[in-house]
Amino acid sequence: MMGGDLGMDATVPGLSLYIQNHDCDDITFELFGNKSIIERHVGLPRCVIHDTGENVISASEKPAKALKIGRKTSMFEAISCVAQGNADAVVSSGNTGAYMALSKILIGAIDGIERPAIVSILPNVLNSTVMLDLGANTDCSPAKLLQFAIMGKAVSQVLQRIENPRIGLLNIGTERTKGTDLLEEAYELLERAQGLNFIGFVEGTDITNGTADVIVTDGFTGNVSLKTMEGTIRYIAHTLKTGFSSSLMSKVGYLCCRNAIKTLKNAIDPRNHNGAPLVGLKKISIKSHGNSDAVGFANAISVAVKLAKSGFVENIEKMISEIEKGNSDENKNN
Amino acid sequence: MMGGDLGMDATVPGLSLYIQNHDCDDITFELFGNKSIIERHVGLPRCVIHDTGENVISASEKPAKALKIGRKTSMFEAISCVAQGNADAVVSSGNTGAYMALSKILIGAIDGIERPAIVSILPNVLNSTVMLDLGANTDCSPAKLLQFAIMGKAVSQVLQRIENPRIGLLNIGTERTKGTDLLEEAYELLERAQGLNFIGFVEGTDITNGTADVIVTDGFTGNVSLKTMEGTIRYIAHTLKTGFSSSLMSKVGYLCCRNAIKTLKNAIDPRNHNGAPLVGLKKISIKSHGNSDAVGFANAISVAVKLAKSGFVENIEKMISEIEKGNSDENKNN
Repeated sequence: MMGGDLGMDATVPGLSLYIQNHDCDDITFELFGNKSIIERHVGLPRCVIHDTGENVISASEKPAKALKIGRKTSMFEAISCVAQGNADAVVSSGNTGAYMALSKILIGAIDGIERPAIVSILPNVLNSTVMLDLGANTDCSPAKLLQFAIMGKAVSQVLQRIENPRIGLLNIGTERTKGTDLLEEAYELLERAQGLNFIGFVEGTDITNGTADVIVTDGFTGNVSLKTMEGTIRYIAHTLKTGFSSSLMSKVGYLCCRNAIKTLKNAIDPRNHNGAPLVGLKKISIKSHGNSDAVGFANAISVAVKLAKSGFVENIEKMISEIEKGNSDENKNN
Repeated sequence: MMGGDLGMDATVPGLSLYIQNHDCDDITFELFGNKSIIERHVGLPRCVIHDTGENVISASEKPAKALKIGRKTSMFEAISCVAQGNADAVVSSGNTGAYMALSKILIGAIDGIERPAIVSILPNVLNSTVMLDLGANTDCSPAKLLQFAIMGKAVSQVLQRIENPRIGLLNIGTERTKGTDLLEEAYELLERAQGLNFIGFVEGTDITNGTADVIVTDGFTGNVSLKTMEGTIRYIAHTLKTGFSSSLMSKVGYLCCRNAIKTLKNAIDPRNHNGAPLVGLKKISIKSHGNSDAVGFANAISVAVKLAKSGFVENIEKMISEIEKGNSDENKNN
């Protein structure tokens, strides 16, 4: 409850908002933070408050240092609660590096997964695109990219409700001959893997045009691409705003078409896409954006609930072992 | 004159448009293509037509093959004309891979430049951002990234008229500790280089927010980032269009604020940013987008003219030799 730029000013009303708008009969919320403050604001049913006082991992703390001082902080205790099987999912708006590191160490990765990845659900002209990795892994082997494809499929099945999502590998051209040797190798792995609907290389333009349901890339490219998208949206919003306030006629026009503008605002509002699963862990861990407000935090909670209720982790474990089995059968036959 | 999706339907009216809107008293245009067709449309003064008939390098030709069959094609002859000193700059909307390869082989790289880069001028909330490389170099050494910074500065001086542009290195965070070892090394090189106004690491959001005048990155990341931007713009245009036509009220509103929309359209219209210099060559070579129309092609010509009149190549040569001198002086002193 202590994480993010707004801290409890976002998490407390965010939780209230989620409970108001969803059927929560089968959910208990374990809240970690300053009990006396939380109690003052949260008169919510189904909430158990664990007092961690003012022990927090600050936003600027390095992951290594955070690991040392982590114990007794709200973030450490919340992740431990899940790791020990006392909760099914954890959500935080806190320090991303520390959250990633603690999630990995306390919860642990699924067998066969080298490193967890950060996933985002981005809007496209048709519906949405699941994209990963968005920053956890700056260097990625072909084997890791295959794991991302499997994890992306699992996310798509729950959050997009697509049974056999189209999976694309991000490159600088769609032709087979484009790109690096590493991507060429990854292409072959994804093409051979059983049970993946691999559609080949996709480009940056494909993220928003609906060509693929899942787009796989390394964490460096994914992070730059995601932030380019955020920046472009801000740039267009700025230019539109300047244009709308440039004359009385434009202002009147703006009033008339404010529903259209609202549709756009909703579609691109990062709060509506908040809640990035850290996938590849043995439990559900959701990273909420550091600057998210109540609406954003509520959305992150809803991602956590959906994944926790879906058998998400078991699904990834099953796919990983099937692909490993397929590979070993293939090796036997060769 | 033969290149691009529209071929002469874009290049011929594009050239006419440029000549109409600019003072061309000191320019001669050497046109390479099918003389009988060009003649029919171009009754322009200051134009010399070189007949290359229907010999063209098709859009799908691999660069290696294009090099073999290149001679006598319009692209080969146009680049040769510049390489032999009979023209100062070349512009083409043709096959990018072939154009890059032929430019490099026929014109040659500046001494001390490993490989030329593709530059784009992108809009930002304040003005514009020079970004490179956008696809020519998928793997980049720190030394190459330093060369890109120098070349980016030279482009900024001519096209943005900024004497000492702020140069940023694209990464997944602004903190010094973020990113790969390669970027860490490049950071040190750029920081040490004399005459560069290096502002440190920048992120994807910084491309459009005006933090830097020049952004340096490898060709893989640059290409994905540029195409993500293109895709995001198309996505927003699509969403706005859907919204505006959703009700009579919205349609009326659209009419009232169409000037505001037009301002946005102009700002993000790729035709207004068309004309990507291939920098690091001994002469000016401009790549016009394959799908550009007359307006886009005219813009590419204007980039070529500005660079050709500026002493652009000499400026890069001077900066490269100064930095090399600075490095060798530093080595002597150590």
